[in-house]
Amino acid sequence: MVNLFEEIQPIAYRDGKVFFLDQTVLPAETRWVEINSVETCHDAIRRLVVRGAPAIGIAAAFGMLVASRVAPKGSFEEYYSHMKNVEEYLATARPTAVNLFWALKRVDKKILGAREEPLREMDALVEKEAVGIQKEDEEVCRAIGLHGQEIFTAAKNGFTILTHCNAGALATGKYGTALAPIYVARERGFDVRVFVDETRPLLQGSRLTAYELCRAGVDVTVITDSMAASVMGKGWVDACIVGCDRMAANGDAANKIGTYGVALLAKAHGIPFYVACPLSTVDLDTRSGSDIEIEERDPLEVTEGMGKRTAPHGVKVYNPAFDVTPHELISGIITERGLIRPPYAKALAAL
Amino acid sequence: MVNLFEEIQPIAYRDGKVFFLDQTVLPAETRWVEINSVETCHDAIRRLVVRGAPAIGIAAAFGMLVASRVAPKGSFEEYYSHMKNVEEYLATARPTAVNLFWALKRVDKKILGAREEPLREMDALVEKEAVGIQKEDEEVCRAIGLHGQEIFTAAKNGFTILTHCNAGALATGKYGTALAPIYVARERGFDVRVFVDETRPLLQGSRLTAYELCRAGVDVTVITDSMAASVMGKGWVDACIVGCDRMAANGDAANKIGTYGVALLAKAHGIPFYVACPLSTVDLDTRSGSDIEIEERDPLEVTEGMGKRTAPHGVKVYNPAFDVTPHELISGIITERGLIRPPYAKALAAL
Repeated sequence: MVNLFEEIQPIAYRDGKVFFLDQTVLPAETRWVEINSVETCHDAIRRLVVRGAPAIGIAAAFGMLVASRVAPKGSFEEYYSHMKNVEEYLATARPTAVNLFWALKRVDKKILGAREEPLREMDALVEKEAVGIQKEDEEVCRAIGLHGQEIFTAAKNGFTILTHCNAGALATGKYGTALAPIYVARERGFDVRVFVDETRPLLQGSRLTAYELCRAGVDVTVITDSMAASVMGKGWVDACIVGCDRMAANGDAANKIGTYGVALLAKAHGIPFYVACPLSTVDLDTRSGSDIEIEERDPLEVTEGMGKRTAPHGVKVYNPAFDVTPHELISGIITERGLIRPPYAKALAAL
Repeated sequence: MVNLFEEIQPIAYRDGKVFFLDQTVLPAETRWVEINSVETCHDAIRRLVVRGAPAIGIAAAFGMLVASRVAPKGSFEEYYSHMKNVEEYLATARPTAVNLFWALKRVDKKILGAREEPLREMDALVEKEAVGIQKEDEEVCRAIGLHGQEIFTAAKNGFTILTHCNAGALATGKYGTALAPIYVARERGFDVRVFVDETRPLLQGSRLTAYELCRAGVDVTVITDSMAASVMGKGWVDACIVGCDRMAANGDAANKIGTYGVALLAKAHGIPFYVACPLSTVDLDTRSGSDIEIEERDPLEVTEGMGKRTAPHGVKVYNPAFDVTPHELISGIITERGLIRPPYAKALAAL
């Protein structure tokens, strides 16, 4: 089913059916998994068929829709008790994914708020909520894409962006965050080209970002992470745009490991470096990047990254999932409310 | 034969037998290939069982020794004609390896110079030349290691080096270039620790450098190339040392792709960045790095690096083998004649 859906979205809802794009087999294969039970939904979230914080939330909401359709509807208590069980079950699929709990809670609240409504309305209600969560995320991403057009203002003969990891459509409702300005520019017929770091150890750049940009017809060139400096040195990059996993109140940005290096290389070459993220990513309770704890991941991701041993047994490995780019290296933060320039602390607090 | 030889050398000559360490199966396996015919030697060089410019030269010289032993020795003409054929055959194993031709020519010259000697002396003569080439390279590397101790002068409680790719014992007679100061420090009981970039796309850092340093009992930690900035940012790196494939007269250094990025990151963190190389690497006819042509390699190294497709089919790839680090970013050049400080042009010309 190579071209089941034209648009690049991790979750598709068509004719009442729910499909997840299987990101575990990308880029070799474009395979859609039909989510026809709570179990297939749980399994898909757990196995990373769907990944990326916003996308996981949307996936869980559609899992609730699938559950609602087969839930007993003799009484509200019976229905709600069933749905509550489903909610708790789905929450175990990715126990650290904040968006998963957030989306499940949002559907739960909607159901509770409709306890006086006829039970036959419940499926439509849950459907509306799931579609709404997806739509809202898409709108936030599109707004980021629109505000991001500001960085192209000075460009005349095309524009080349370097990005790291995947902060794209595949991680969100649609458009992505870092890739949203690229998709919107492309819609408007603007010539935008992209260099994408492959992003070791998990290769989200070459596997996912290159995949979705290729599908969208964008001119994309894959490089290893170690080639970013060379490409910048040749004058081939006009700006860098990356996503963000968590932003501190002062604008320090935690993102995929390697982002900090890209920011330093951009500075050394006088290339502007932008972070694109929804305001929900900003944690005003975190004063600065030094307060963000960096998760260390399994050494096997480095030593057996592609199913083959690539380092001697017993060797030490350091494998942090993220790094923190200090706000001084960030030329601007692209949000759904506009492109923010430094100083960030005041601007972020105001928004 | 895991521990056939204690020392880490790509080529071992023991009791009249020639062995190459099979670098194609590292780090999973330590396998020695006995070179008992010209054909096994040719095959080993061609298949990259042995790699690294100095090591290839040594390997070819030992191939000539193996050939000499079975060469017809009725007359000098008969013997020389046979050896000349072997020389031409071995030269086809890696058609672009300058050290291969250089070593073959050197043995050839030795044979021609001994045309008046008894033919029964020829094997010993070729043996002496092969062993001599290996020994000389080992001495050059050891001298680099000794002069490199200067960078540890200020260190009290141990010292941590970050290196990129493999400029180690496995590429040379022994010790390597970038790794020589580490091996010599270790011999002297100095506490030296190493971070090694895995070095995509071909992973010479995690496969080869980590292997040989582990074997030597050095404290080594593998990171992906994208983690170098983080590790430096944490204050964990005291100096960077890398090798060099070709140095211009002004000190600009062409080396494995990613070296330039490491140099920029080192500068951003105030970490000294050294290049270690024999003076034979310096090409005084090349005025600056911009005159060095950068070879582009097969895109499959990036997209199917570990035997598995990791990027969408048809995507563009940029895969340069080397980059050039401008001399301004180099804190010192460690050669067999001493540690050179800037300005380099005068010092390099003098040596």
